[in-house]
Amino acid sequence: MFKHIKKRSKKTGSPPGSLIHVGETKAETVRITVIDYDGESYRKKEIQRIEDCFQLKDTSTVTWINISGLHQIEIIEKVGKHFELHPLLLEDVLNTNQRPKIEDFGGYLFIVMRMLFYNGVKNEIESEQVSFFVGSQYVISFQEKEGDVFDPVRERIRNGKGRIRKSGTDYLVYTLIDAIVDHYFITLEKTEEKIDRLEEEVLTNPIPETLQEIHTIKREMIFMRKSVWPLREVISTFERTESLLVKETTTIYLRDVYDHTIQIIDTIETFRDVISGLIDVYLSSISNKMNEVMKVLTIIATIFIPLTFIAGIYGMNFKYLPELEWKWGYFAVWMFMLTVGLSMGMYFKRKKWL
Amino acid sequence: MFKHIKKRSKKTGSPPGSLIHVGETKAETVRITVIDYDGESYRKKEIQRIEDCFQLKDTSTVTWINISGLHQIEIIEKVGKHFELHPLLLEDVLNTNQRPKIEDFGGYLFIVMRMLFYNGVKNEIESEQVSFFVGSQYVISFQEKEGDVFDPVRERIRNGKGRIRKSGTDYLVYTLIDAIVDHYFITLEKTEEKIDRLEEEVLTNPIPETLQEIHTIKREMIFMRKSVWPLREVISTFERTESLLVKETTTIYLRDVYDHTIQIIDTIETFRDVISGLIDVYLSSISNKMNEVMKVLTIIATIFIPLTFIAGIYGMNFKYLPELEWKWGYFAVWMFMLTVGLSMGMYFKRKKWL
Amino acid sequence: MFKHIKKRSKKTGSPPGSLIHVGETKAETVRITVIDYDGESYRKKEIQRIEDCFQLKDTSTVTWINISGLHQIEIIEKVGKHFELHPLLLEDVLNTNQRPKIEDFGGYLFIVMRMLFYNGVKNEIESEQVSFFVGSQYVISFQEKEGDVFDPVRERIRNGKGRIRKSGTDYLVYTLIDAIVDHYFITLEKTEEKIDRLEEEVLTNPIPETLQEIHTIKREMIFMRKSVWPLREVISTFERTESLLVKETTTIYLRDVYDHTIQIIDTIETFRDVISGLIDVYLSSISNKMNEVMKVLTIIATIFIPLTFIAGIYGMNFKYLPELEWKWGYFAVWMFMLTVGLSMGMYFKRKKWL
Amino acid sequence: MFKHIKKRSKKTGSPPGSLIHVGETKAETVRITVIDYDGESYRKKEIQRIEDCFQLKDTSTVTWINISGLHQIEIIEKVGKHFELHPLLLEDVLNTNQRPKIEDFGGYLFIVMRMLFYNGVKNEIESEQVSFFVGSQYVISFQEKEGDVFDPVRERIRNGKGRIRKSGTDYLVYTLIDAIVDHYFITLEKTEEKIDRLEEEVLTNPIPETLQEIHTIKREMIFMRKSVWPLREVISTFERTESLLVKETTTIYLRDVYDHTIQIIDTIETFRDVISGLIDVYLSSISNKMNEVMKVLTIIATIFIPLTFIAGIYGMNFKYLPELEWKWGYFAVWMFMLTVGLSMGMYFKRKKWL
Amino acid sequence: MFKHIKKRSKKTGSPPGSLIHVGETKAETVRITVIDYDGESYRKKEIQRIEDCFQLKDTSTVTWINISGLHQIEIIEKVGKHFELHPLLLEDVLNTNQRPKIEDFGGYLFIVMRMLFYNGVKNEIESEQVSFFVGSQYVISFQEKEGDVFDPVRERIRNGKGRIRKSGTDYLVYTLIDAIVDHYFITLEKTEEKIDRLEEEVLTNPIPETLQEIHTIKREMIFMRKSVWPLREVISTFERTESLLVKETTTIYLRDVYDHTIQIIDTIETFRDVISGLIDVYLSSISNKMNEVMKVLTIIATIFIPLTFIAGIYGMNFKYLPELEWKWGYFAVWMFMLTVGLSMGMYFKRKKWL
Repeated sequence: MFKHIKKRSKKTGSPPGSLIHVGETKAETVRITVIDYDGESYRKKEIQRIEDCFQLKDTSTVTWINISGLHQIEIIEKVGKHFELHPLLLEDVLNTNQRPKIEDFGGYLFIVMRMLFYNGVKNEIESEQVSFFVGSQYVISFQEKEGDVFDPVRERIRNGKGRIRKSGTDYLVYTLIDAIVDHYFITLEKTEEKIDRLEEEVLTNPIPETLQEIHTIKREMIFMRKSVWPLREVISTFERTESLLVKETTTIYLRDVYDHTIQIIDTIETFRDVISGLIDVYLSSISNKMNEVMKVLTIIATIFIPLTFIAGIYGMNFKYLPELEWKWGYFAVWMFMLTVGLSMGMYFKRKKWL
Repeated sequence: MFKHIKKRSKKTGSPPGSLIHVGETKAETVRITVIDYDGESYRKKEIQRIEDCFQLKDTSTVTWINISGLHQIEIIEKVGKHFELHPLLLEDVLNTNQRPKIEDFGGYLFIVMRMLFYNGVKNEIESEQVSFFVGSQYVISFQEKEGDVFDPVRERIRNGKGRIRKSGTDYLVYTLIDAIVDHYFITLEKTEEKIDRLEEEVLTNPIPETLQEIHTIKREMIFMRKSVWPLREVISTFERTESLLVKETTTIYLRDVYDHTIQIIDTIETFRDVISGLIDVYLSSISNKMNEVMKVLTIIATIFIPLTFIAGIYGMNFKYLPELEWKWGYFAVWMFMLTVGLSMGMYFKRKKWL
Repeated sequence: MFKHIKKRSKKTGSPPGSLIHVGETKAETVRITVIDYDGESYRKKEIQRIEDCFQLKDTSTVTWINISGLHQIEIIEKVGKHFELHPLLLEDVLNTNQRPKIEDFGGYLFIVMRMLFYNGVKNEIESEQVSFFVGSQYVISFQEKEGDVFDPVRERIRNGKGRIRKSGTDYLVYTLIDAIVDHYFITLEKTEEKIDRLEEEVLTNPIPETLQEIHTIKREMIFMRKSVWPLREVISTFERTESLLVKETTTIYLRDVYDHTIQIIDTIETFRDVISGLIDVYLSSISNKMNEVMKVLTIIATIFIPLTFIAGIYGMNFKYLPELEWKWGYFAVWMFMLTVGLSMGMYFKRKKWL
Repeated sequence: MFKHIKKRSKKTGSPPGSLIHVGETKAETVRITVIDYDGESYRKKEIQRIEDCFQLKDTSTVTWINISGLHQIEIIEKVGKHFELHPLLLEDVLNTNQRPKIEDFGGYLFIVMRMLFYNGVKNEIESEQVSFFVGSQYVISFQEKEGDVFDPVRERIRNGKGRIRKSGTDYLVYTLIDAIVDHYFITLEKTEEKIDRLEEEVLTNPIPETLQEIHTIKREMIFMRKSVWPLREVISTFERTESLLVKETTTIYLRDVYDHTIQIIDTIETFRDVISGLIDVYLSSISNKMNEVMKVLTIIATIFIPLTFIAGIYGMNFKYLPELEWKWGYFAVWMFMLTVGLSMGMYFKRKKWL
Repeated sequence: MFKHIKKRSKKTGSPPGSLIHVGETKAETVRITVIDYDGESYRKKEIQRIEDCFQLKDTSTVTWINISGLHQIEIIEKVGKHFELHPLLLEDVLNTNQRPKIEDFGGYLFIVMRMLFYNGVKNEIESEQVSFFVGSQYVISFQEKEGDVFDPVRERIRNGKGRIRKSGTDYLVYTLIDAIVDHYFITLEKTEEKIDRLEEEVLTNPIPETLQEIHTIKREMIFMRKSVWPLREVISTFERTESLLVKETTTIYLRDVYDHTIQIIDTIETFRDVISGLIDVYLSSISNKMNEVMKVLTIIATIFIPLTFIAGIYGMNFKYLPELEWKWGYFAVWMFMLTVGLSMGMYFKRKKWL
């Protein structure tokens, strides 16, 4: 289950800008990957000490520093000091429960958003916070743990296909955001498959577990909505920013990813509508099943209770009970009972209960 | 059932502008129809090679190139190259799950929307993506498969009735959009017929299949809403555009189709309200039926259970059971039973259960 | 039942501005009434040929041409030609399913709205489309059939009371709109009476027909809302128009009718809330009735089933069944049964089931 | 119950500005109270003829004319003529079903709003329309009947405490509106008490009357909301008006009463949420009670029906029924029955039905 | 339970600006704490007489006067007089039911908001009103009772860590607001724990108390929403104020707390969605349990009622009842009964009732 509020309580009372990691530690070690490129050159290395990449800050090449794992606060502190990042933003990086947002600090932009991916093993959606600092020659990205969402981007930088090697940091960040947003689509695809299966189930064989699954998907959609809704504004602000960091040519790509975000929001809303419809159908299916059970009970009981009563009558031990003496009494009673039973059956038939 | 998210996963990781067809292949072969006209002349031909129409690009006549079928990507690539269309837009054409939108690229406008038509055989609404590139002398339209929605427009161009032959590409696009929007009305007509039938059914003989059908219509309306809602903004932007491609005289027609869109949205909302009302009535009908079943059971059981008890009493084998010895005991018991039964019947009558 | 979508399908494919009557023919013959007046003079006549009123177009008097019945398209065509009205607007007049709107064409204004009146015989709300063309010296109104909604206005023009004879076409149109809006109030009064009656019924004796009626009113309110909601904007646009056709002195009256429209919308929303509350109460009443039925069944069954079991015990034919031999066995059993029965009764009393 | 639409039908067809009293006559005689004051002087008198106060119109003192009772139309006509008030506004005064609004007519402001007070005897909310005409030296207020809501204001004017004697008509009107809004709080207090009591009832002993009361409160809240919601805009317009009638120093007080209005709207919305929650809890309580009834029935029936069957077996009169001949047959059957009964009891215990 | 409307009735009729304490007295004695500091100096004292701090008003140091307890109105009056605060604002301070708001009075700002904290003993959310007057060199804060929410701020001022000692009154107020908002997170954490527990309960063992708790959380969320929603606007206004009291450097911190507020609102909305989902699941669980009960009843009854009937047949005392004479009659009957019972069991198995 998603935590909507992570353990912030340990932070309470500390002054603003205090760097305290809020959230569970998802990675064992912090891994720092540096990719440095321009139209011609390309270098990639993994470094142990964060200081090893500091000399790349002011080169004319684009430098992408990706830091996976947030629990070693001294690394983030050093990065903050060297790149002159505002302490409140570093606090946001560590507070892994941020609402997506973008902030323009003149020399650099700060973007925080949520990465979603489908965990096929646990069969549920997982979530991670990603933050970007975008300067004119560097992009610093923070992830909670390593993942393969950015791998296609790395590959594209390496083989130099497309515009990426010829473009600046704004295009790199666009590509990274686009990779994240593309993963939303995959998450929704999986969700749609689930919904289709549940729809089938609800109509053919609704069991309590079905409702539980519907409820889980509903919560997942509530969570996704909370993650994606503000992203729309973030990207729109990014596109319309007056910052010189974002070039004219990149805005058309941002508009594209903006459209995708809208489409995702639309789909989430649609899913929510469909899910709430599913709950209605589920409840009505349960109702119908009960109805059917009731009908069987009623038919059996209303046929046999009067008949048993008749049998009871002739089980009485009265001394003077004339019918008992008749030769054909037993057969007459059978005839009478059959008549009663059949006419009841016909009554139910007419009522469409049979 | 509509797919809200088409298999985009195969695209994940590819750079923006990659032309990959997302969605099922609905047509077997790609069919290219070119209509070239002005006030005096009219030519129509089907071509095999897309290059055959390229020379018409810069003539003073209006050229309408209609391409049905999207799976041959090289055709779209060639068109894109020759008409200098932005790769991101070509990607949108192929990604058949777009939210309706309009984009102004200076030299041309790009419009993508959704065509809906009622499949009388499968008894369901079908959907297809249509995209338009509108230049000053050409209109290029992409459909997923061939259809007859545009046939009346073709006919009108051919016989030269109305304003169409005397007007430019903006009026042609308006006519095409209008044809699509007109088909929405037909789809809604069919839906209204279904709703009327279901309303009848819900009140007279509600069965689980009724709910299932209501649920299907509900999903169809959710889907239509998703398709039409953004169209309103598209047409409104088209009308108020500063692009020189749209002439003053056309805006009044666009306002007309805008009004139609609003009316369709209104109707969809109304249908949604009516459908949710239907579900209430359905559930209550089910409840009522159960109530009726319960009443029958209760009446029979509460009348005969006490009577059976009385019969049981006189079926006991006690040695000293004085009533059994009485001559009129049996008849007295019958009298007593009748009294009990009738007074219960009267009680139920007073309770209005009978 | 209201049709939300009238048979537009027969229009599909025809060029914009084609005059085709959409909707059922509600009147047998078209009736044309012309009233021509100014401060001093007053003339009223019914004409057979529409051409007979054309000479009044440019006189300095106010000319009101009222046309009831839309199925003779040539009349509308002639009016359109003579008064130079845009074909798209004439199409709207004939397409009797318009959303209320106002359009300013410079020389004249076009207003289309919906007239509602309560049919006491069928006990339902009926609806008709009314359109106005407002020029500087003429008002042309189109109705689907004759009605008496405008009669008080005609009477006021005739006897010259109030401002109407001294004012221009803008005031005349205001008066006509006001007459229509006043009829909305009457419709709502009738609806409120129905709701009050249903509220009574739901609490005292809810039957399935009650729900059906609630459902009908709900649909009526959905329909009214669809008719009135856009009217608010129409009147507001009319009031704030820059057209020289609307004089300063009339705007205050338009503000008044605007207020009425808001009040009607408020009331419709209130009714919707009340109706949805009624459905809740209805469902709960049904539930309560079932509950009561269940309780009777449970009480009777739980008292007599154990007693019948006891009687069954002593109905067994075992050879050695000591109690049967006792002299007071029968009376002891009765005592025991009474004790069981009474203690059950007390249990139910304590549970508040009795 | 509140009437949402008062009998307007008798007005239908009359020209705008016709003075017809719409609504029930709530007062027997019309009572006119005139208070005339400035910083130094104070006079209060009740007058019989409305003309007696006309000479005060143009004095430099503030004159407050309060008219309780609307059914004597000639009084309102005279006031209108003497103070030159627009007939449409007088019509609004008489039409006691107005939506709260403010209108600026240059020389005077017109405000209409709704007064609510709690009738402790009938245990329900009552409502009355109040209208104000605010000139530079006079305030005319119309009430439907006499009430004590304005008494504290009268007292404050008399004893000259606070700013009221030193301020103009704008402050007087503010004070009157504030008195009315203060009464809304009292009404909500009473409602909250009712809701608390119903909440208690719903959880401990829900009966159909509880739902009925919830439904009544819901309707009251719908009505209050309709009365208060537009008031917010009225006061906001009053505060931001460009009219010279409202002095700078008064706006801060208007902002205060505006805040109160917002707070009332908030509270009404909160109550609506709480009430809809109550209905859920009520329905679920009913469901629970039914569940409990069902369980008792099921336990008794499922224990004794099989036992009765066993007793029935040995009540059969077969000639060769070996068990009947056994000496310990009867006791063996008892043992068997006890075993069956106890194991069923344990089953129910495990199912948590007992 | 929260009171939404506190006993305002005692205020009704008093002139605006009357200082009357509305709400319960939460503290026994009023406690006044004065902290006076600048970059170098720091003094803290508790004073008995409010006059003792008046000389600090115009010093160049920042003076924070915290008053806990509102029932001694003369203290508030004196403060108001000395610091020249508007009587309406003092009235707001005492009226402990304010909607959060900010007001700019030129020389000082007034902020009122709600403090929430979780009472672990009563296991419920408690609430208190806090008001701030912010001058250029002083901050006066009013609390309803003493609490430890501000303690970390006091500690930070004392030890001079962070920016606080070097900043002005705007930063101090920001810190206080931030402390309050941080407590909202803790409250939501506790609520999330409760929701998780209830979710568990609803799925495994739903009892009426579960619903009651869900209902309580729902009410708490309604209350929190009412408290936090307007706060967003308050902080946003504070950030964008043109008042010279708020320095440029502080706005970035205000934006941070603004983000937190948005996040809290998001979370509340999410919780509301989740809670309403829980109610659905609860109701459906109850339904399921009933269904299960019904099935047991139906199975037992439908198997044994027919069998008892058969036993009843052979319990009849007819003289000529041939089967009774057969040697194997009894065993044949047993065979027949077993056949009937087993085939019913198989029927239920097929229906998936077993």
